[in-house]
Amino acid sequence: MRPSGRAPNELRPISFTRHYTMHAEGSVLVCFGNTRVLCTATVDERQPPWLKGSRKGWVTAEYGMLPRSTGSRMPREASRGKQGGRTLEIQRLIGRSLRAAVDLEALGERQITLDCDVIQADGGTRTASISGGFIALCDAIAGLRKRGQLKRDPLHGMVASVSVGIHNGQPVLDLDYAEDSSAETDMNVVMNDAGHFIEVQGTAEGHAYRRDELDAMLDLAAGGIEQIIAMQRQALED
Amino acid sequence: MRPSGRAPNELRPISFTRHYTMHAEGSVLVCFGNTRVLCTATVDERQPPWLKGSRKGWVTAEYGMLPRSTGSRMPREASRGKQGGRTLEIQRLIGRSLRAAVDLEALGERQITLDCDVIQADGGTRTASISGGFIALCDAIAGLRKRGQLKRDPLHGMVASVSVGIHNGQPVLDLDYAEDSSAETDMNVVMNDAGHFIEVQGTAEGHAYRRDELDAMLDLAAGGIEQIIAMQRQALED
Amino acid sequence: MRPSGRAPNELRPISFTRHYTMHAEGSVLVCFGNTRVLCTATVDERQPPWLKGSRKGWVTAEYGMLPRSTGSRMPREASRGKQGGRTLEIQRLIGRSLRAAVDLEALGERQITLDCDVIQADGGTRTASISGGFIALCDAIAGLRKRGQLKRDPLHGMVASVSVGIHNGQPVLDLDYAEDSSAETDMNVVMNDAGHFIEVQGTAEGHAYRRDELDAMLDLAAGGIEQIIAMQRQALED
Amino acid sequence: MRPSGRAPNELRPISFTRHYTMHAEGSVLVCFGNTRVLCTATVDERQPPWLKGSRKGWVTAEYGMLPRSTGSRMPREASRGKQGGRTLEIQRLIGRSLRAAVDLEALGERQITLDCDVIQADGGTRTASISGGFIALCDAIAGLRKRGQLKRDPLHGMVASVSVGIHNGQPVLDLDYAEDSSAETDMNVVMNDAGHFIEVQGTAEGHAYRRDELDAMLDLAAGGIEQIIAMQRQALED
Amino acid sequence: MRPSGRAPNELRPISFTRHYTMHAEGSVLVCFGNTRVLCTATVDERQPPWLKGSRKGWVTAEYGMLPRSTGSRMPREASRGKQGGRTLEIQRLIGRSLRAAVDLEALGERQITLDCDVIQADGGTRTASISGGFIALCDAIAGLRKRGQLKRDPLHGMVASVSVGIHNGQPVLDLDYAEDSSAETDMNVVMNDAGHFIEVQGTAEGHAYRRDELDAMLDLAAGGIEQIIAMQRQALED
Amino acid sequence: MRPSGRAPNELRPISFTRHYTMHAEGSVLVCFGNTRVLCTATVDERQPPWLKGSRKGWVTAEYGMLPRSTGSRMPREASRGKQGGRTLEIQRLIGRSLRAAVDLEALGERQITLDCDVIQADGGTRTASISGGFIALCDAIAGLRKRGQLKRDPLHGMVASVSVGIHNGQPVLDLDYAEDSSAETDMNVVMNDAGHFIEVQGTAEGHAYRRDELDAMLDLAAGGIEQIIAMQRQALED
Repeated sequence: MRPSGRAPNELRPISFTRHYTMHAEGSVLVCFGNTRVLCTATVDERQPPWLKGSRKGWVTAEYGMLPRSTGSRMPREASRGKQGGRTLEIQRLIGRSLRAAVDLEALGERQITLDCDVIQADGGTRTASISGGFIALCDAIAGLRKRGQLKRDPLHGMVASVSVGIHNGQPVLDLDYAEDSSAETDMNVVMNDAGHFIEVQGTAEGHAYRRDELDAMLDLAAGGIEQIIAMQRQALED
Repeated sequence: MRPSGRAPNELRPISFTRHYTMHAEGSVLVCFGNTRVLCTATVDERQPPWLKGSRKGWVTAEYGMLPRSTGSRMPREASRGKQGGRTLEIQRLIGRSLRAAVDLEALGERQITLDCDVIQADGGTRTASISGGFIALCDAIAGLRKRGQLKRDPLHGMVASVSVGIHNGQPVLDLDYAEDSSAETDMNVVMNDAGHFIEVQGTAEGHAYRRDELDAMLDLAAGGIEQIIAMQRQALED
Repeated sequence: MRPSGRAPNELRPISFTRHYTMHAEGSVLVCFGNTRVLCTATVDERQPPWLKGSRKGWVTAEYGMLPRSTGSRMPREASRGKQGGRTLEIQRLIGRSLRAAVDLEALGERQITLDCDVIQADGGTRTASISGGFIALCDAIAGLRKRGQLKRDPLHGMVASVSVGIHNGQPVLDLDYAEDSSAETDMNVVMNDAGHFIEVQGTAEGHAYRRDELDAMLDLAAGGIEQIIAMQRQALED
Repeated sequence: MRPSGRAPNELRPISFTRHYTMHAEGSVLVCFGNTRVLCTATVDERQPPWLKGSRKGWVTAEYGMLPRSTGSRMPREASRGKQGGRTLEIQRLIGRSLRAAVDLEALGERQITLDCDVIQADGGTRTASISGGFIALCDAIAGLRKRGQLKRDPLHGMVASVSVGIHNGQPVLDLDYAEDSSAETDMNVVMNDAGHFIEVQGTAEGHAYRRDELDAMLDLAAGGIEQIIAMQRQALED
Repeated sequence: MRPSGRAPNELRPISFTRHYTMHAEGSVLVCFGNTRVLCTATVDERQPPWLKGSRKGWVTAEYGMLPRSTGSRMPREASRGKQGGRTLEIQRLIGRSLRAAVDLEALGERQITLDCDVIQADGGTRTASISGGFIALCDAIAGLRKRGQLKRDPLHGMVASVSVGIHNGQPVLDLDYAEDSSAETDMNVVMNDAGHFIEVQGTAEGHAYRRDELDAMLDLAAGGIEQIIAMQRQALED
Repeated sequence: MRPSGRAPNELRPISFTRHYTMHAEGSVLVCFGNTRVLCTATVDERQPPWLKGSRKGWVTAEYGMLPRSTGSRMPREASRGKQGGRTLEIQRLIGRSLRAAVDLEALGERQITLDCDVIQADGGTRTASISGGFIALCDAIAGLRKRGQLKRDPLHGMVASVSVGIHNGQPVLDLDYAEDSSAETDMNVVMNDAGHFIEVQGTAEGHAYRRDELDAMLDLAAGGIEQIIAMQRQALED
């Protein structure tokens, strides 16, 4: 039995609220159960300096947690004077995942930055960030297209992400904090709408997992991401 | 005529949403028009080290803006590696203002930290932070009292804040960004429910102001803060 | 009775020593009683990058205290690796105050930096910095004019500053450290030679002040600043 | 055809030189082809502060590249003032991987730090670090046992790691830099001597991979790690 | 001919003004010609942590230059966020030099910090800092003795320093900035009142020097330091 | 008797292994006894910005110690976020010393960076770095000449370095760690192949040294450096 009473292959209630704040080119509040992340996309009409000379653009991400998004207050990274390893790792993952859906030449000599800020954390903040960040990215690109700044659509697919793990010996989908903190194994999976893998990151601090467990987790992830992509499609149509 | 069409002494619509996030001891979303700030209060049962030996507690604040809370994206202070002067100045102001309502000996050997994070900015983020932070502080203290951790109430008053300024030659109350960016003079005022001053910070970059203009701004502020305190009272009763 | 034996509206002995060091374009040692601050003005013939494209110049300030300018040694900010919030707040105040007397277009595409370094502190270092920094700024601008680098005088007024406060229930002028550390209320006021306000910053950590107390402090400040401006005039004529 | 002429499932020549430097409790130079990493283990008889109160010890890792270990010089992280995201990500991976083989209670209230410094890089520095770091860890623990400082062996398994990827459409084992920089997909796998997974980290910047490609890469990794563990055993017996 | 018209073995006018500021346990303004350094000594009754367990005290130094102590403004190290290599090198030199005159056991479990802040620079700031810092140290120790906090005198000698160099092919004593910036060789020498060497630091960026040139410079330094020590004695008697 | 059994004027076994790593333009492993330093030279075809407008190039150095190159582990400077004073002092010394052998105009508008990384420390790491760095510099310059990128040879001499000191009252050459840590006096000397001095840095923390002791140490250094230069010549011919 899962702490939340969900079936092993059951997602939490998921929602995407577009146009959540008024200034950004894309702004989405994504909720995976009690996890709430504000994803905003900013278009900067300057190419990052290290791409100078190419005709390419770039998509990057930054991630942060509000100090009291968690059960006990985390020191503010701005006042500590640096971002921790976990933060850097997550924002690199978000950026790579979203770039996998973008033709950087078609994007042109500009940069889109996704800011993923966790308002409330209950497990799965990075997978929510990727799934919600994709919608914010779509909105920012749609704006560029509407204003005639893009010759062709730089998006060549959809991207979503979910976590899977082994909890009490059972493979489960979309772990909340209660499960996550007692899981033997935790895996974050990013896939596209063709059902192919963009990222697989599985970690066993407690218990090394067998190949059949890995296979079961990948099956769960594929099923969950298919549902999330359907919800993204719905959100983009509204 | 003000850009927003408001009367010179008219506040924007103000709201305080308590229990906005689930983890913090106090959590309030405060809105002053389009300005939205999440204020959370965290109780830490350890006295700050520099108070060791006294019987006192402490109230402090930290302030941050989400990168795209503003019209153009601001670099994330965590990735720049330091908090800017404006941030430090504002969080010192919030902390001083709230401490003015607290008997630090009655609070006991603990610390309450107010995190004020700007979700969306449209002028007046520091005055919204103080006004909303006060509600979050009340909720955190109420929690301590409910659990029997306080012998007597450390709160000896209420605190609220508003901005005033001179715009197009006219003293006006509660400036939004459109007014703020073209105002000749900008003043932030913090007062308590006895109508006394806790902080007055007035700045004239463009146009030095006369004593009668200062007096008019202080009158406007006193009137505005009286209304905000009434709204705070209402919010705390709900 | 004030600790120093002064009357409530009595300034400390104030002096401005021009040409105190030999390298700077303006160099003034300012003394307010035992408070001694070295203010130097440096002319940099490069416009700050963020003004590029405008025809304006800029005036900015930096503030520092020598580690043993105070009763107990303060850690050197250079070795701690960052400037504290108080330092940033003060140097922003000094810069804003001095800019209020300068026509930045008339200054042309250059920058003047005022360095205010506290040699010995006994209360009122920021107000001494502003009052002395103004003289250093005048000398730097006079040098530019002498060398024919300015078409018209960018200075359109004089600027001085003083602190006022409430000590033992009585409004007093120009607090020294003994008063400052036990004052209920402390206010720094910056005015120009027309008697108008540039900055008012009043703080009540202990005791919220009434409007009539605020009025009395502003009256004291206006009287004090009038005297300081007379001394500045005298110093500039020597 | 692979650039190196190797068969798809062929490892590079691998060697472990123990006792490579004289001061450390464990010191191993590990070579995977031209990739050379110096792994040293340091025993610190102090428990990390955040474990205070438990009876546990800790194993952690730090990773660095000499500035000219690579084709073009990388700025020294010590002079840039911070470790980059990639460095933090890798050292977190090394630490987690090695902890998976250690019973932290049996280790007792002490900490072992693995320093993995890349002398020469030619792809696969993180997998070489884990594989070589494990030997250095064994030597450090053997020293503790020899001196009678451990009641029971804290090691409950062996750990090794290898990279796999898809290059020119073909799954390949143990990529060197020439392959790595043109691979469509890159995956780092950490396993134990029971053939179970400790970490799987697969990334597709260019080309999302199908489930059958993922399966083929995992098969290659399992075969490669089995061989590396045999070489580790041999090195530990010498 | 030297730019200053001095004879090759002629010092600049040197003065030591004791009790220059009012807060420090020792406070000396030292002038070597136009070079002016404020040296303050602070007694801290806490042993530095790394001496815990020994019965020893410590003497350390920090060095800084006011931004406009030099011909062109140097960025403030506090705002750059770190002390430069030259600063660290000089403050290490000052600390080592002064410790050479102190019996650290006789000093007891306390620390004396010498802050050497350059008000105006015209060459030789480090040698002035050492020579003036020694007087400030004497005053701080005399204060401890007066208050009965020392069983025996921890000072076992006097310390002074001067620069020598080769300018236009000629060995010269106590270089000012005009000479220093065009010298082929520059050497800083620290000696005690027994005529023995504490530090010799000679650098040839332009022209490697012969042994006979080195000998001539050392002779000049010995003669100059003897005179400086006589002036220190005089200053301490006043 | 020296701890190592060497004669007072006897060097440790010294070796220079060229082409030690494969990527750098110059790469030398230098051993002075158990001290092992990897010196690599990187040619950067961009002039440092502060030389813009001149026709000159630059030679600079960076120095680092692997965390466990020493008896007890030193915290990694990259993770502490800054280089210590000792590191900065040493890398400035290495850079100055090597520049003394280079005609910077003949080098042209490029920069050569010497990275000196200590693999194993047993005293004399800075003198080994200079002596080995010189060989790496020669190889980098030879490469430039071979590719026809230099009109004339920018090297106008050879540079080597050794330490001398007074141990148990006796002047000794090339101190290892056992001697260094108990020496009364320690001096690092850098000379060229004409027998002239480039740097002399002598420090007496414990015991101030007499002129005759200084002379004896300089004699020892001159003899040692002559031998090291012969070994450098041999290495360059191989």
